[in-house]
Amino acid sequence: MASASPRRRELLSALFDTFEVIVSNVDEEALFVTPAEEGAQRVAKAKALEVARIAPEALVIAADTAVVVDSAVLQKPADAKDARRMLRMLSGRTHKVVTAVAVAFQGRCHTAVEMTEVDFARMTDEQIRRYVATGEPMDKAGAYGIQGRASIFITGIRGCYFNVVGLPLHRLGVLLEEQGLDIWKGQPGERS
Amino acid sequence: MASASPRRRELLSALFDTFEVIVSNVDEEALFVTPAEEGAQRVAKAKALEVARIAPEALVIAADTAVVVDSAVLQKPADAKDARRMLRMLSGRTHKVVTAVAVAFQGRCHTAVEMTEVDFARMTDEQIRRYVATGEPMDKAGAYGIQGRASIFITGIRGCYFNVVGLPLHRLGVLLEEQGLDIWKGQPGERS
Repeated sequence: MASASPRRRELLSALFDTFEVIVSNVDEEALFVTPAEEGAQRVAKAKALEVARIAPEALVIAADTAVVVDSAVLQKPADAKDARRMLRMLSGRTHKVVTAVAVAFQGRCHTAVEMTEVDFARMTDEQIRRYVATGEPMDKAGAYGIQGRASIFITGIRGCYFNVVGLPLHRLGVLLEEQGLDIWKGQPGERS
Repeated sequence: MASASPRRRELLSALFDTFEVIVSNVDEEALFVTPAEEGAQRVAKAKALEVARIAPEALVIAADTAVVVDSAVLQKPADAKDARRMLRMLSGRTHKVVTAVAVAFQGRCHTAVEMTEVDFARMTDEQIRRYVATGEPMDKAGAYGIQGRASIFITGIRGCYFNVVGLPLHRLGVLLEEQGLDIWKGQPGERS
């Protein structure tokens, strides 16, 4: 897996018993373009291809997540002040989370993109301040972790939850199946 | 917390740094009635009140989850065969997950109920057999764990994800706030 994210690693363990993490050095900001669906696919593909060059025999999986609110794309916050700004933008409204996933295998690379809508409760400035002070937002697109302490502020979602965490598991499973790979814990087994 | 579920314990740690688990002995099946919204609230309230009698000074939180497909209510499977039957019912369609939460504190008990729709991909008999063989379905309402190996079969949800796992965190936070309790990690703090 071409990702430094511990959350993606945890999710991927739903599909594979064992895998190796190789972090790519692609310049995500330079590669990203709008619309976010296109930018995320471009970044995910670049990550997968770079790691495929390092490990040409491997099945390589990469992903990229962006948070979209109105026409603004929120990536990882630069600092605590930036995180508070992002959370004020998300408070009391609905935003979109776009995750692209790329699979590189045997010289081919396929990508897919999944979108989930996320409804945030209204957060007070005090709640935002206390949440940012936990440090949780700093390495996350949109400055929050739905699976972490931000969970109590999420009133609901529409779409794939795992997509919001960072890896659309069902979509990835379909992508792997389309390439003739068995998605059940990487065990060899008859195709269904 | 009046629950034996390790998943609820993990979710509750998003709200509180420390808490104690006391498992109630209420007869869930005898108490449950339909519709599921009413049955789940009745069970959650009975659990909370029983534990409140044991620990009268405590803030007691209890919950009960039911899976509803058409007019059938799926609780925990009796055995592997029953789990396979439930999963065949859920395969390739949408069902509802109802979780009721009850908060007992200072002689009062308040309940709330949350509903989430869950879309399942079509599972083959082989996939169902292999999933049930993991043992994961056995202690779970509807015979699946959305946060576990069933995650790859979930194409999407509408509503609160944590409700499907077993504890509607935002709804619980609102219930606690309504009773004058600060929901941010149980720290004393100004009400907002």
